[in-house]
Amino acid sequence: MECISNQELEQLIDEVRPYSQYGKLVDYIPALKEENSEDLSVSIFHVNGTFFYAGDYLKKFTLQSISKVITLALVLIQNGEEAVFERVGMEPTGDPFNSIAKLETLKPAKPLNPMINAGALAVTNMIQGKDVDEKWDRLLSFVRELVNDDQVSYNERVAKSEYDTANLNRALCYFMKQHEVIEGNIEDLLFLYTKQCAIEMNCSDLARIGAVFAANGVDPVTGRVLIPSHIARICKTFMVTCGMYNASGEFAIKVGIPAKSGVSGGIMGAVPHKCGIGIFGPALDEKGNSVAGVKLLEKMSQIYGWSIF
Amino acid sequence: MECISNQELEQLIDEVRPYSQYGKLVDYIPALKEENSEDLSVSIFHVNGTFFYAGDYLKKFTLQSISKVITLALVLIQNGEEAVFERVGMEPTGDPFNSIAKLETLKPAKPLNPMINAGALAVTNMIQGKDVDEKWDRLLSFVRELVNDDQVSYNERVAKSEYDTANLNRALCYFMKQHEVIEGNIEDLLFLYTKQCAIEMNCSDLARIGAVFAANGVDPVTGRVLIPSHIARICKTFMVTCGMYNASGEFAIKVGIPAKSGVSGGIMGAVPHKCGIGIFGPALDEKGNSVAGVKLLEKMSQIYGWSIF
Amino acid sequence: MECISNQELEQLIDEVRPYSQYGKLVDYIPALKEENSEDLSVSIFHVNGTFFYAGDYLKKFTLQSISKVITLALVLIQNGEEAVFERVGMEPTGDPFNSIAKLETLKPAKPLNPMINAGALAVTNMIQGKDVDEKWDRLLSFVRELVNDDQVSYNERVAKSEYDTANLNRALCYFMKQHEVIEGNIEDLLFLYTKQCAIEMNCSDLARIGAVFAANGVDPVTGRVLIPSHIARICKTFMVTCGMYNASGEFAIKVGIPAKSGVSGGIMGAVPHKCGIGIFGPALDEKGNSVAGVKLLEKMSQIYGWSIF
Amino acid sequence: MECISNQELEQLIDEVRPYSQYGKLVDYIPALKEENSEDLSVSIFHVNGTFFYAGDYLKKFTLQSISKVITLALVLIQNGEEAVFERVGMEPTGDPFNSIAKLETLKPAKPLNPMINAGALAVTNMIQGKDVDEKWDRLLSFVRELVNDDQVSYNERVAKSEYDTANLNRALCYFMKQHEVIEGNIEDLLFLYTKQCAIEMNCSDLARIGAVFAANGVDPVTGRVLIPSHIARICKTFMVTCGMYNASGEFAIKVGIPAKSGVSGGIMGAVPHKCGIGIFGPALDEKGNSVAGVKLLEKMSQIYGWSIF
Repeated sequence: MECISNQELEQLIDEVRPYSQYGKLVDYIPALKEENSEDLSVSIFHVNGTFFYAGDYLKKFTLQSISKVITLALVLIQNGEEAVFERVGMEPTGDPFNSIAKLETLKPAKPLNPMINAGALAVTNMIQGKDVDEKWDRLLSFVRELVNDDQVSYNERVAKSEYDTANLNRALCYFMKQHEVIEGNIEDLLFLYTKQCAIEMNCSDLARIGAVFAANGVDPVTGRVLIPSHIARICKTFMVTCGMYNASGEFAIKVGIPAKSGVSGGIMGAVPHKCGIGIFGPALDEKGNSVAGVKLLEKMSQIYGWSIF
Repeated sequence: MECISNQELEQLIDEVRPYSQYGKLVDYIPALKEENSEDLSVSIFHVNGTFFYAGDYLKKFTLQSISKVITLALVLIQNGEEAVFERVGMEPTGDPFNSIAKLETLKPAKPLNPMINAGALAVTNMIQGKDVDEKWDRLLSFVRELVNDDQVSYNERVAKSEYDTANLNRALCYFMKQHEVIEGNIEDLLFLYTKQCAIEMNCSDLARIGAVFAANGVDPVTGRVLIPSHIARICKTFMVTCGMYNASGEFAIKVGIPAKSGVSGGIMGAVPHKCGIGIFGPALDEKGNSVAGVKLLEKMSQIYGWSIF
Repeated sequence: MECISNQELEQLIDEVRPYSQYGKLVDYIPALKEENSEDLSVSIFHVNGTFFYAGDYLKKFTLQSISKVITLALVLIQNGEEAVFERVGMEPTGDPFNSIAKLETLKPAKPLNPMINAGALAVTNMIQGKDVDEKWDRLLSFVRELVNDDQVSYNERVAKSEYDTANLNRALCYFMKQHEVIEGNIEDLLFLYTKQCAIEMNCSDLARIGAVFAANGVDPVTGRVLIPSHIARICKTFMVTCGMYNASGEFAIKVGIPAKSGVSGGIMGAVPHKCGIGIFGPALDEKGNSVAGVKLLEKMSQIYGWSIF
Repeated sequence: MECISNQELEQLIDEVRPYSQYGKLVDYIPALKEENSEDLSVSIFHVNGTFFYAGDYLKKFTLQSISKVITLALVLIQNGEEAVFERVGMEPTGDPFNSIAKLETLKPAKPLNPMINAGALAVTNMIQGKDVDEKWDRLLSFVRELVNDDQVSYNERVAKSEYDTANLNRALCYFMKQHEVIEGNIEDLLFLYTKQCAIEMNCSDLARIGAVFAANGVDPVTGRVLIPSHIARICKTFMVTCGMYNASGEFAIKVGIPAKSGVSGGIMGAVPHKCGIGIFGPALDEKGNSVAGVKLLEKMSQIYGWSIF
């Protein structure tokens, strides 16, 4: 079965919206504390180009950790698998996304995967460009291409707020610099990374990006190849094994689709060969995932038969 | 594309057999040290009932960790998801399969998932039965049903060898008993667990079990439901997120199918809606997976388009 | 200045007794839950043979972890330093006394010191004797010699209670057996260890043992050498660096004398060249030390100038 | 027995000098790689003012971790015990001196003691002064007062070399800043800390500082109180429980005196009521202590009866 109307989605979000009350807004990024915890919007973008939405689907939010998948795709395109996986591993971890302890235990001190902060910082460190501005331009161009919208940009206030409070990420960076996993100026890297996290769009834009991954890298409207298929597949694999923070395993069991969440409350889903999904619901569970968003995906996965297992 | 002849498979195993030289036999289970490290056999069992094989497909081997998936299915059938996941988690871990350290950190001291030893012991502890014999009978009956062969049994010598050297598993058990994750007599549990690990079959038998999981629990020949579909799906999910020890993430990227390996050199694959796979190749890589077996699955996945991502 | 009367001590314990209300009885050893948390007794035994006491100084209690120092002395006498420190380290640890996680990290899996449970079990495992009974006889003889009292024995009910609930210690033992740090039958070892912990005496007896350590191994009354001086010194060193659980560092700063506590509420002190101290006060702080006992030692150390620093 | 001539010391260093060949120069601080690994010098400064020396006793070296004790004394004088121990603990640790993992486990993220890098950075962060220059002036004045020499200063080249490569310390700082254990500008702190570590003197100067600690804070020549006695005692206690890196426990057993080492190869000893000791021998064992220096202290402790146990 397939979603065929906005009404269907409207009904679904009405059903799951009450779950928002069990979550709360992220508290460690000052600029994100001001969201309305009842907000909920969703969009589905099929690989055939049709799309549906519900809720305030024009409401913008920042990508936060969702951006890790996109940067990974770009960096794999630019550097190749071998170079990337020399610096960051492929294995899920039972530790929190911002943990530093495991890095000290591992020899070499290589982050376990690109979805935890250490790994994502190492990935962003590999974006090519002669300086931080050129690196940013390449990333932003790539995002705009995926969304097919030249207006997509980032939220300066959120970026600044995160940059100013990024001491844990600073600690991760200097630790990895010591162990030669990352290189160059750390403040530049954090500046780039916090801008990346602050890239802003609405759930329809996000669904469109998800659709590119779902279609193995092909733009569902123009038919252009934006991401080589094997790289799109790698990204979807990471979304399954470590896309939903420390609840990735449970999400794989209950929902069963590649997805990546961010502490802004966004979730990007990519159902292979079928559709991309964009969700925004800022009330988070204790693992950092949108409470209502996860519930919505669980329902949609059952109704539309999305599980890959 | 689909495998349509034994010759195809024979050719494939000839191609990958040389990789065996980069691996070595498991060394900590005395009875398994005597295998021939060049051995390699494979079988594919399609959900429509057709099957193919290559190599010494009648050669028997013990399931070892592969048995964890089967016991999990049985215990989920007997106790329901809620009861099972109260005692064992759903999350992958970056730690080794036999690690005890994480248990001490976690509150409660619940094993992260049923594929690491701690979790598997907790699962075996939930097999129902009035005593250890009845529990064993139920497990063996279930395995025989899956294979559709009443002669399947276990290797007594291997079981004894593992029981006698199971001190790490004893440590895990007593630690979990202290924290009330498991209950009852520990020696009984280890006796049952080591018999479970020593269940013996050939790669064709194993492929047939894989096919039941691939077909969402339906016997591909008789059409009978042996495992409820939602439970078959849970098992396949664990096979993806944590089925290949500490190389599960890499395997998901390179092969992309649900699979579970054992230190005997066996691998069971389950390609959703398509086929089950059984492989035996006792030369292991440093993570504990069959070197040639993993290489073979990588090739087959590419040729037959098996990746779920 | 030196203590010269029982009255002095009576006054001191009256002053510190109220601190007992901030502590509580140990809760994980069933047989120890029945003590009176207001109890407080103390004895000082000078190396010249004079002694003083206050409170119910005939009240018996079990040694628990205090026994670790005595067994260490015996095992060093029997096996020599080299053999002992091949199996157990000399370094303090920041981890809890019953932790297993560090053992997994260390290569080899050698307990950091003989005062944590893992190390103490490894030490007890080295008591010489053809069987567990002979080992026990030797330990008990040694204790009786130190106390100079043939009636000293152990509390059977406490020993049994601890044996029955010793699953964490079982886990430690099997882990160390796997790594060849300990050898032989584990249940025998735990039987011996729990008897050792249940050795029972009053605070005057304990002060007398402390005095032997204070006098570098010489019996303060008979003048006999019960412990070679270099071994007595080793024991006192461990008492300073790791004798008071995870509060050893703070105790060294605030009190500054070699001391070993047990979860029964006992503390044995050994002020080099001056005196031994025995204290019983079963209300424990969160680290497992007698609240009133620690306070009392702090006061006595100031008044009598006991700090070794 | 007491040292009464330079000849005695000359003979002792001739005996232990060969041990230098089992050690090697520190390798992670570029500017320290150029020392002569055969160097060995020693000085003893008795609390009565007499002093003896041997070897190239005018050869200067940087204090490195030895400076941690001096800064701790200053900061305790300036801020009081309560304020200091709110930010840094009193317990020894089994982890390496530069480890960050334990900080993540502890709640709050308070360094276990002031002798590991995390704790020392937190201590330096508490030096009072309106800016980094004033803080440095106060520290340097304090050091000059202890040595009674206004010419004592720091090695700029070593300080710069350490500052430039201080990425692990940066990681520790940002981690602690995140957890509000330290405050203010991190680069300023590291600038101050690396100057502190690069304070330079010879072994006679160092012995004189040790003598102040040995004499409970009193200058052995002028009789002035430079450090309140309870603070001198606290410092000596930390020297025993955690002054010799991860070999503090072994050193306490084999030598038994308060001592602090640095990776430059310096060791400062403080034998309560007797003397201070300064040693320089840049060939280090694997724990980071001067090989010949430790051996020398072991011999001297036996000959002169220095053990406090």
